Amino acid sequence: MASIFTKIINGEIPCYKIAEDEHHFAFLDINPNSKGHTLCVPKKEVNKIFDLDESDYMGLMAFSRKVAKAIEATVPCERVGMMVIGLEVPHVHVHLIPLHSMKDATFQHKVEITEEEFEEVAEKIRSAIK
Amino acid sequence: MASIFTKIINGEIPCYKIAEDEHHFAFLDINPNSKGHTLCVPKKEVNKIFDLDESDYMGLMAFSRKVAKAIEATVPCERVGMMVIGLEVPHVHVHLIPLHSMKDATFQHKVEITEEEFEEVAEKIRSAIK
Repeated sequence: MASIFTKIINGEIPCYKIAEDEHHFAFLDINPNSKGHTLCVPKKEVNKIFDLDESDYMGLMAFSRKVAKAIEATVPCERVGMMVIGLEVPHVHVHLIPLHSMKDATFQHKVEITEEEFEEVAEKIRSAIK
Repeated sequence: MASIFTKIINGEIPCYKIAEDEHHFAFLDINPNSKGHTLCVPKKEVNKIFDLDESDYMGLMAFSRKVAKAIEATVPCERVGMMVIGLEVPHVHVHLIPLHSMKDATFQHKVEITEEEFEEVAEKIRSAIK
């Protein structure tokens, strides 16, 4: 069965899309640790990041860097954190999280964001992707 | 002033070393989220990961993958998580954390490990580096 991320990539589930290339897709986390929290996923459905072969892994890391630099350029924060955990959805995903304090990195505190705010932050990040 | 990680790399502060190449150094986190928690750092002292230029960033990611695969091969866990936060020490470091549950990813729960256990897990991981 397709993962929830594959359904998002295929447009079966709506998302606030940030970026896409041939092998990768980035969109806002709908239950964010902080405003601008973004997920970068490979289109290939692989469970664990270190099971990606080296070139797929390196491709995902390069794609995530591009997105992270756009977040850092547009979302006020101390820095952008990068986290790969993957215990909940068995499809590799890189969390890019604007960090204001350690609290934003713990996944124990979520922020509520309106649809308008999601759209606004997505548009800002998209506009800064190089 | 040299960061604590530069002092570790230079041997001024002792560590349980895992791996080293020309540009990178890996060692056990002395205050681990779980047994086998390892830090990978570039020898170049840069504060934020996304300020590394692309080739330095990609080199660190490739080095971290090698170390992570050795951890996955030798430390029982669900999977190895990869996290870059960096709010405490202003010298890029990639956390590689053997995850048993989400708790191990939050940095809110630490494990106590004896010197013998640190040495044993370091030796196991070192022996599996390819």
